Amino acid sequence: MKAYTKMSREELLTLKAGLEEEFRTQEAKGVSLNMARGKPGAAQLALSMPMLDVFNSTSDMNTLLGNDTRNYGDWDGIGECRRLMASMMEVKKDNVVVCGNSSLNIMYDTIVRSMVVGVNGSTPWCRLEKVKFLCPVPGYDRHFKITELFGIEMISIPMGESGPDMDLVEHYVNNDEAVKGIWCVPKYSNPTGITYTDEVVRRFANLKPRAKDFRIFWDNAYCIHHIYDEIHDTIPNILEECEKAGNPDMVYIFASTSKISFPGSGVSAIATSLKNMEYLKKFMTTQIIGHDKINQLRHVRFFHDIDGLNAHMKKHADILRPKFEAVLKILEEELTGLDIGSWMKPRGGYFISFDAMPGCAKAVVAKCEQLGLVLTEAGATYPYGKDPQDSNIRIAPSFPTPEEMAEATRMFVLCVKLAAVEKLLQ
Amino acid sequence: MKAYTKMSREELLTLKAGLEEEFRTQEAKGVSLNMARGKPGAAQLALSMPMLDVFNSTSDMNTLLGNDTRNYGDWDGIGECRRLMASMMEVKKDNVVVCGNSSLNIMYDTIVRSMVVGVNGSTPWCRLEKVKFLCPVPGYDRHFKITELFGIEMISIPMGESGPDMDLVEHYVNNDEAVKGIWCVPKYSNPTGITYTDEVVRRFANLKPRAKDFRIFWDNAYCIHHIYDEIHDTIPNILEECEKAGNPDMVYIFASTSKISFPGSGVSAIATSLKNMEYLKKFMTTQIIGHDKINQLRHVRFFHDIDGLNAHMKKHADILRPKFEAVLKILEEELTGLDIGSWMKPRGGYFISFDAMPGCAKAVVAKCEQLGLVLTEAGATYPYGKDPQDSNIRIAPSFPTPEEMAEATRMFVLCVKLAAVEKLLQ
Repeated sequence: MKAYTKMSREELLTLKAGLEEEFRTQEAKGVSLNMARGKPGAAQLALSMPMLDVFNSTSDMNTLLGNDTRNYGDWDGIGECRRLMASMMEVKKDNVVVCGNSSLNIMYDTIVRSMVVGVNGSTPWCRLEKVKFLCPVPGYDRHFKITELFGIEMISIPMGESGPDMDLVEHYVNNDEAVKGIWCVPKYSNPTGITYTDEVVRRFANLKPRAKDFRIFWDNAYCIHHIYDEIHDTIPNILEECEKAGNPDMVYIFASTSKISFPGSGVSAIATSLKNMEYLKKFMTTQIIGHDKINQLRHVRFFHDIDGLNAHMKKHADILRPKFEAVLKILEEELTGLDIGSWMKPRGGYFISFDAMPGCAKAVVAKCEQLGLVLTEAGATYPYGKDPQDSNIRIAPSFPTPEEMAEATRMFVLCVKLAAVEKLLQ
Repeated sequence: MKAYTKMSREELLTLKAGLEEEFRTQEAKGVSLNMARGKPGAAQLALSMPMLDVFNSTSDMNTLLGNDTRNYGDWDGIGECRRLMASMMEVKKDNVVVCGNSSLNIMYDTIVRSMVVGVNGSTPWCRLEKVKFLCPVPGYDRHFKITELFGIEMISIPMGESGPDMDLVEHYVNNDEAVKGIWCVPKYSNPTGITYTDEVVRRFANLKPRAKDFRIFWDNAYCIHHIYDEIHDTIPNILEECEKAGNPDMVYIFASTSKISFPGSGVSAIATSLKNMEYLKKFMTTQIIGHDKINQLRHVRFFHDIDGLNAHMKKHADILRPKFEAVLKILEEELTGLDIGSWMKPRGGYFISFDAMPGCAKAVVAKCEQLGLVLTEAGATYPYGKDPQDSNIRIAPSFPTPEEMAEATRMFVLCVKLAAVEKLLQ
């Protein structure tokens, strides 16, 4: 295939006419597809239905320690669920607080708490003239929405193939006292799918923050969310690494079972140093008497341990892999050599990150919508929803069937081509 | 019985010797009982066990509108659960957002949001020199803990038999711009058991707050938590009354099923004006993708509607009534005419509020603890944990059995008597 960037104006015009014809044909089909959000598909939800058989009206509802999960108590979660989440998060049980159904909610609470009362006794962020957060880009839109909502200035940090640009991270964190945090998805990153290298993780742990209340928001959302059996990405234990580096309190780790059991009805957790936990406790015990312990026990009785979780994730992978491969196959077949887009081949997580020709992402998303295919809004993966290159598009292949994914990707590719041709003809 | 206050020093000394003998005998028994918190008892928890039969692995998990409760979505709750909670809260479905398992958490979030970003665009409370809250006393300790945690100044408002002292409430709210809120438990109040009269509710609705961002935190925790079949307290609909009075946005109503289904595994809700909800939405949708909708559907499939809820509450009442009556009977038999304590006879809720002779509450609680009976800390029902009279003690009769409650009350009465005698002899 000839690269579009090498084509003459005449060649491009001919190409455009053909693509427009294709577009009209596709539009007439009146398809309706959605690859906007990382929602598990129906087959994945079915995997966890036996979890609803775990309890019935005659079940013993006590924890191993004999606490009744049906009643008040255990603000930090039942012991066996703390252990389960700890094994998934690769930390010790004592460093884990199990919360409600949403790790995003824990992150929001953590930011809000820092705003109102500070971090372990520091000046509340809301009293400071300026608070800044580093945001590796492209990244997770819901992270950026939280910091945006509270007027925290966001600074984009480019993601490379080994993780965020650590020279830049070190520059900001070690020199600017207003930099109070960084959003990270260290494994199978949203949306790039990249896993931070060991060196990157260690450079994080060895930061020398100018601000004592600087914290790493380590959203390990996809910690056991591999797509392939044979390749499992791993990362060093950031909590241990921080300890070794003399920064024991610098990181909050977040995770949940939203994409393991049920989105919205899973359990979430935060892991951090005992000193941070002591401070959290004061607020968490004022905020709530306790989270849903029946659901915590339900998860423990269903998954048992890390082996149970991993076996379950293998089933998810078997469902997700063909969807990812359907997308990747068509992208390769249709776009290789055209010089109008590049993409990552993730080994886990929920997304494929696509970079269209600069200045084309919004046009691609708009064209897809015209065809009935909903994508994540262009720019969403950047702070303030503004991608300076107007290039990145997040593809979420989990919800449609593999056949629908293939169809959706063909529609997507058509729009990528058409937008590129139009751009080149400008 | 002769009033202790009418006794001579000699009579008191004789009495004291007898009570001390009784105390030693009781102490030797080594009893261990707890009436500190409003925890449902085992028989009550058993009532909701059939809720765990509602779903199994073959269940249809869709809402009436066909949304899959297992997946992401519906930040404000599934329609049928909003309807269920609305019927319980006596408001319209559109005014309700169903949240997670804890109404306390919604209250905390609401306070925190006001601190960081203000109320519908007002100056964030954290930027103000002084923020004050009115606290009807005795009241709910966990309310006071939230406002205390954020440095909000709490002003005690005495509770009378018809509700809070409304002259005082009007005085503060209508004249002091720093007064931003008031904590209310309008029905079967915690701990007095008092239900606000219609006039009190209407005076609340007709407040003319000096502060535009003043809000009533209307914690209708015990809205359907009657103890007797024949007497059900009712209150006017505060949302409607506020609307009529030209204060449509002045109230947030909170409720949950924590003491209907399972504490910790129920559903909670906030009801407020559509304008307030529009503002809440911006924050709630950043905070969380959605709450536990499977649990929402579980509640709907189990309770169906307000009739189902009321029928279930009748069963709770049948279990609670003997416990309340066991306490009240012994208090009456043992303390009537002694002039050393007074108490309320509640028609619903979870508590009996007892006023010991001023200066005796701490001593009573300490003596009870010596006997192995744990009570709510004296002072807990007042802001900052300080009861200026050192008089109020909250009795929570729900957790022990009726027999244990009778025994606990006899121990309590003994300590009330002994503390009074010691006080009078000082």
